[in-house]
Amino acid sequence: MKNFFKVVDIEDVWDRRSAFPVVDQETLPLASTVGRILSEAVIADLDIPGFARSTMDGYALQGATTFGATESNPGYLTVVGSVAMGERPDLRVGPGEAVRIATGGMLPPGADAVMMIEHTEVLDDTTIEIYKSVAPGQHVVAQGEDIARGNALLAGGQPVRPQEAGLLAALGCETVRVFRKPRIGIISTGDEVVPVTAVPGPGQIRDVNSTTLTAMTTAAGGQPNVYGIVQDSLALLKNTCTRALAENDMVLVSGGSSVGMRDFTIEAFEAQEDAHIMVHGVSISPGKPTILARSGTKPMWGIPGHVTSAMVVFHVLVQPFIAHLGGLDDRFRRVFTIPCRLTRNLPSAQGRVDFVRVRVMPRDGVLYAEPVLGKSGLIHTMVKADGLVRIAAPVEGLDKGDAVAVELF
Amino acid sequence: MKNFFKVVDIEDVWDRRSAFPVVDQETLPLASTVGRILSEAVIADLDIPGFARSTMDGYALQGATTFGATESNPGYLTVVGSVAMGERPDLRVGPGEAVRIATGGMLPPGADAVMMIEHTEVLDDTTIEIYKSVAPGQHVVAQGEDIARGNALLAGGQPVRPQEAGLLAALGCETVRVFRKPRIGIISTGDEVVPVTAVPGPGQIRDVNSTTLTAMTTAAGGQPNVYGIVQDSLALLKNTCTRALAENDMVLVSGGSSVGMRDFTIEAFEAQEDAHIMVHGVSISPGKPTILARSGTKPMWGIPGHVTSAMVVFHVLVQPFIAHLGGLDDRFRRVFTIPCRLTRNLPSAQGRVDFVRVRVMPRDGVLYAEPVLGKSGLIHTMVKADGLVRIAAPVEGLDKGDAVAVELF
Repeated sequence: MKNFFKVVDIEDVWDRRSAFPVVDQETLPLASTVGRILSEAVIADLDIPGFARSTMDGYALQGATTFGATESNPGYLTVVGSVAMGERPDLRVGPGEAVRIATGGMLPPGADAVMMIEHTEVLDDTTIEIYKSVAPGQHVVAQGEDIARGNALLAGGQPVRPQEAGLLAALGCETVRVFRKPRIGIISTGDEVVPVTAVPGPGQIRDVNSTTLTAMTTAAGGQPNVYGIVQDSLALLKNTCTRALAENDMVLVSGGSSVGMRDFTIEAFEAQEDAHIMVHGVSISPGKPTILARSGTKPMWGIPGHVTSAMVVFHVLVQPFIAHLGGLDDRFRRVFTIPCRLTRNLPSAQGRVDFVRVRVMPRDGVLYAEPVLGKSGLIHTMVKADGLVRIAAPVEGLDKGDAVAVELF
Repeated sequence: MKNFFKVVDIEDVWDRRSAFPVVDQETLPLASTVGRILSEAVIADLDIPGFARSTMDGYALQGATTFGATESNPGYLTVVGSVAMGERPDLRVGPGEAVRIATGGMLPPGADAVMMIEHTEVLDDTTIEIYKSVAPGQHVVAQGEDIARGNALLAGGQPVRPQEAGLLAALGCETVRVFRKPRIGIISTGDEVVPVTAVPGPGQIRDVNSTTLTAMTTAAGGQPNVYGIVQDSLALLKNTCTRALAENDMVLVSGGSSVGMRDFTIEAFEAQEDAHIMVHGVSISPGKPTILARSGTKPMWGIPGHVTSAMVVFHVLVQPFIAHLGGLDDRFRRVFTIPCRLTRNLPSAQGRVDFVRVRVMPRDGVLYAEPVLGKSGLIHTMVKADGLVRIAAPVEGLDKGDAVAVELF
């Protein structure tokens, strides 16, 4: 084989992210920004709320006027009016006075607290009895208490979840500046691969990777562009890569399972403008023969053709690159794992990180990770699995009952 | 207040799901089905793979022919040809013979195993030396080993992840039967609420719930339809609910923060055709005044106007209903939590389930849940949080250092 593997670690691959610039920005209507990454900090241009608001149904009053009121020694207040929702109250609350107010109503001048309706009794049209005292500020949200004007609560590089979208709505952002989705060109290779629409003949299999990698690209925040199947031909692969590079921010070639084809991928990458092979071989299983290259400032990946290997490599290596290209700041990257107990011994080769497909099963209040058996090329093992367990490089294997961290997929 | 709360538990609310039928089905192109729910079991109409395949680059041969070969006592085999990718090999492998084969190649007749190229040495054009023995079946995926024809690997009610889509691709499913997305009509109420496009006047706030509930509905697999803001008027709310019921599978009314308006929501629901109030009051905080009603077989929700309360109620109660309407089978429902240690004491009232917003922070290899302080109406507390901790009804509070399970959002 022409190219010897200089196998590198996962972290070494991740470090290469900094070689690639983040995509440019676009302006979207607020409703389209959920799942996207903010490209700029968002500064509050007003206080939220813009006025002191009641958080309860009850009576706005001066806290001091209630001090000492109890069930056995109630206080008596004069009701001088009501606060209409959505309007500035035109009355003032003095000592010994109260104003009817609903949750969300604006506190009238003079009032500094709200007495919950449950702790009052109406005696007549203008008099209530109160059974509790409230401190100034109680059951009130002060002006700017949620967000103070001038504060930057959202940072560039931060993802928009429903709550961030809500905050943007509160700030009146009809449109939002976000990074555009990185465009990912997806290419399948192999003389044995036929389209999903074809009936495979002897020795042929359907193209599964175009479907799985498209779905994973979308989930990773990318915009997939599928280039279909390229036969085992250097010229064809080279030309398809050139076209995909021109039209995308990253190119992802899966397959090349034959020895010759593997060399074609390297050669097709090397033939691109300003090309450089950055990684050829990663110390993971499955996924060792993975290639990372660049053409100018665009990454090109050569990943295994086996559907499960391709999915693991995507999950472990490609996904963080898409997130990086898409502008996600590392401090907003959330990869939480589920702690489980292993149901059986797992052998592993030292010197590489093994990824084992597991099913997560609760039993007697404990979560167990049950390895899904089956060779790595079999897609049913991915369908049966909830996630992956990572066996670190220095470890020779794990024992039944060992604590493991499951990465869901 | 006219309607007294008969507060029920979360589980009692969930039990009401069975009153509502699942939505109907539709046929979609495969690429559009990721994130959707299969409406029918999918039966394999062919073996996958359709032929015995090599999982390694090397030589197809009879395992028995290699027995006894070692580094010090190599075996010698005659190479009688090569397997072309994607084609049926037209040669037969006998004892003492080998055929060059690449990963994914079809095993030729007579061969039952593959010797990895790494364990061979080419002596001349027709002779190789082998240093290992392989058992029959080794480095081979048998016909039907991934999926045997006639097997139902995917069930109705199962969600389509990238791997399920890959399996459907392998089976040649150009189109797939799935449940359509449940349509959810979203209505905001309140005289104090103004559109995102408006500048709030004194006592007014922007409509945040339409944005957050739309985003959460989409994430839950629903199709949101926004009806905007309805002022505090029974007639208006009744008519808008009627229209939303006609156009959707579920109606979600948020707000009605004023006492009168809360009654309006109940009355507007009761005024619908074949209406019944099922739940009025749930023993959770925030979210106690939640209403679940039905009109015929369609659920109607009245949820709090406070943005954070609305989000918690959606997460805890509404989301499982959308999943149910959308056809998700409970056995495919995956709600995994992140075990953390609490960073401080948390008081809680007995007799209700408290949901506390927390930020998850790793420190010295342990995950800590740091409660986000701030009143429940404040959206910045949701922006700062990673998830919720549930304090069970019988518990009076939790102590610093207690183990808690964080539900991410």
